Amino acid sequence: MVLKSFVEVETESHFPLENLPYGVFKPEPGSVPRPGVAIGDYVLDLSALSSAGLFDGPLLKNSDCFNQPNLNKFVGLGRPAWKEARATLQKLLSATEPTLRDNTALRHIALLPMDKVQMLLPVTIGDYTDFFSSMHHAKNCGTIFRGPENPINLNWFHLPIAYHGRASSIVISGTDIVRPRGQAHPTGNSAPYFGPSRKLDFELEMAAVVGPGNELGTTVDVNEAADHIFGLVLMNDWSARDIQAWEYVPLGPFLGKSFGTTISPWIVTLDALEPFACEAPKQNPSPLTYLVEKTSRNYDISLEVLIKPSGQADSCVVTRSNFNHLYWTITQQLAHHTINGCNLRPGDLFGTGTISGPEPESYGCLLELTWNGQKPLSLGGTTRTFLEDGDEVTFFGYCQGNGYKVGFGRCSGKIVPAAPQ
Amino acid sequence: MVLKSFVEVETESHFPLENLPYGVFKPEPGSVPRPGVAIGDYVLDLSALSSAGLFDGPLLKNSDCFNQPNLNKFVGLGRPAWKEARATLQKLLSATEPTLRDNTALRHIALLPMDKVQMLLPVTIGDYTDFFSSMHHAKNCGTIFRGPENPINLNWFHLPIAYHGRASSIVISGTDIVRPRGQAHPTGNSAPYFGPSRKLDFELEMAAVVGPGNELGTTVDVNEAADHIFGLVLMNDWSARDIQAWEYVPLGPFLGKSFGTTISPWIVTLDALEPFACEAPKQNPSPLTYLVEKTSRNYDISLEVLIKPSGQADSCVVTRSNFNHLYWTITQQLAHHTINGCNLRPGDLFGTGTISGPEPESYGCLLELTWNGQKPLSLGGTTRTFLEDGDEVTFFGYCQGNGYKVGFGRCSGKIVPAAPQ
Ligand SMILES: [Ca+2]
Ligand SMILES: [Ca+2]
Ligand SMILES: [Mg+2]
Ligand SMILES: [Mg+2]
Ligand code: NI
Repeated sequence: MVLKSFVEVETESHFPLENLPYGVFKPEPGSVPRPGVAIGDYVLDLSALSSAGLFDGPLLKNSDCFNQPNLNKFVGLGRPAWKEARATLQKLLSATEPTLRDNTALRHIALLPMDKVQMLLPVTIGDYTDFFSSMHHAKNCGTIFRGPENPINLNWFHLPIAYHGRASSIVISGTDIVRPRGQAHPTGNSAPYFGPSRKLDFELEMAAVVGPGNELGTTVDVNEAADHIFGLVLMNDWSARDIQAWEYVPLGPFLGKSFGTTISPWIVTLDALEPFACEAPKQNPSPLTYLVEKTSRNYDISLEVLIKPSGQADSCVVTRSNFNHLYWTITQQLAHHTINGCNLRPGDLFGTGTISGPEPESYGCLLELTWNGQKPLSLGGTTRTFLEDGDEVTFFGYCQGNGYKVGFGRCSGKIVPAAPQ
Repeated sequence: MVLKSFVEVETESHFPLENLPYGVFKPEPGSVPRPGVAIGDYVLDLSALSSAGLFDGPLLKNSDCFNQPNLNKFVGLGRPAWKEARATLQKLLSATEPTLRDNTALRHIALLPMDKVQMLLPVTIGDYTDFFSSMHHAKNCGTIFRGPENPINLNWFHLPIAYHGRASSIVISGTDIVRPRGQAHPTGNSAPYFGPSRKLDFELEMAAVVGPGNELGTTVDVNEAADHIFGLVLMNDWSARDIQAWEYVPLGPFLGKSFGTTISPWIVTLDALEPFACEAPKQNPSPLTYLVEKTSRNYDISLEVLIKPSGQADSCVVTRSNFNHLYWTITQQLAHHTINGCNLRPGDLFGTGTISGPEPESYGCLLELTWNGQKPLSLGGTTRTFLEDGDEVTFFGYCQGNGYKVGFGRCSGKIVPAAPQ
């Protein structure tokens, strides 16, 4: 049954009362950043609600977590506080609750049209880790680069492979991405290629936002890991395949990734995703004990990627995938990340890795979709092997409920030419 | 000629008036962290000097950069402000200047015995990158893991190879390091090994602290890169070789490194290191244009590593190396890091990579010194292949001037047993 808010929410909206994702926004260019939740086409200003004393539960009554320029403090409070906030907000926004509905003055300052506000990064990201958890992606990449015999390295089946990514260059949806320059493989005995990347790609990912952290030297049990995850966003791990291929042996991806990573502004909480939980794929070989979960769950989140070439009126869907294709779950990722005693902090980000499904139409990046440029992709009136200047790439993601959607909004970015040198 | 301070400084001290390295400390356990400089056996409280109005130059007069819990604001101001601070401090501390010397009350609160204060991380580190810039280290590791034919991958000679490291687990000298648990290579068809690392190692490194950053999408010219580097610290990139060897293909080191990285508390500025600049090794093949420097410089910094086994009275020197062995300079590292438009922020940290020299006595880690455990090292009455619980590893580094040293103090950490599980 569909929850009813006094704020009008259309059936196709990503932001019904069942969702209530958290973000950070500025009402106007000069104003102070503050937390908000999305409801229909509106943003509800949590700093205004907090100042009005409407968070009156025991955990949030005296907290300044919503009078902050980011969500780090709130996500660090943990699930009891998250549940209290969710209950308070679902009540305040419900059709039958007069407190906010009938307070015209407060509604006027607290409920703002989404298309009028500026969204910012929801958290300050101390460290960003990118995993590699879709088996289909691992298999396709291995086949492209090393051939069809043993495309997946043996270690992949025993641990959620990952690398540390660059935190400084994570940007919010809507930020232009400057085509990176860099080195690529020399041909024969020549010097390496140098110039703007010729193999610029997107990677369809989602990312988990860490809630409460852990002390250095301690671990998080896999069966308690969900309490350390606040929610999920969409993420585009832009990748320059030519730079990456030349630099990555033996220390992994570096400048092929660090020029920009885009996330969507709204963090959808695990509590909102709960009705869409589903069983994760069976793991064979079975993992070591510290990675064995009592219940191993993914979420049924439909994902799609669209490309809109410059000057073309319409976007073309280039892939449809689903979060449930992940082999390693986000709770296994978190337990693995801390098994050596590594400390996590509130606001840390864990990318899932490219989410490719088994079918060619569900591959999560152009490297796979065009098989490293060998099979150009048709895009309305044109074709693509890799991204061209002016291309706008947009990800959408949502869960389909019974009469409503719990969605992530959009994650998009446009490629602009490399700066002259 | 040796500069003379009214604070007594012994000839062997690392902290004469020629040095003046910056750190952050608490005078007492409960007090607020604040910036300081080291002079002899004392720490000079810069927040106290600033409050007393003694930074009276045009750039620092109205700045609150020393009333901060870290040095990020000061290092972000850039070289003109750094030079002004250095001139002010050299004057205030000189033997002939009465302002501080004869102000008993101010001296009492501002000049504190170093052994009474608690040193903290000098900067908040947004992102930490670790390079791989010693050719001897690259060659030794390649030979150990892949054999003597082509031990160094071709790309190594064209670009300063690096990976993103974990910022959250960087700790200050003196912090215990908990032996990490993790997975290692299976033998035959068995499950992977799991347990406390059996190949725990140190890595002798130094690290550059970034000063002013750059905007995302812009680059820093290699000949201007020195203006973006505030100074250097000693760094121990603790490494679990068994975890690292199993996990690092294809995305690089992860949990084999992220359990702890130790830095020394005092940032020695490039201005203090200037008299010890020396020519960097000739590069062949010559690098791409964006990495060609008008003057390519290293610094003559003597480095040594000591291990003190638990219960043993004395430390044993296990290696002596020098910063001038680096093939890729720190300015080339910085230019390379931004060539794709990656943004740097004040306080970012760049590790040099393990600094191994050509001689076996100058190898920068146990992996090389014991040739992956094949040649145990003699340590007074005992031997080592890798680190054992209770071992304390200490790095020292200094430049030898004419009658004085410009030193880094110590960078040390003790291994404590893996937590029970
Ligand atoms: Ca990725
Ligand atoms: Ca290292
Ligand atoms: Mg990226
Ligand atoms: Mg480390
Ligand atoms: Ni980081």
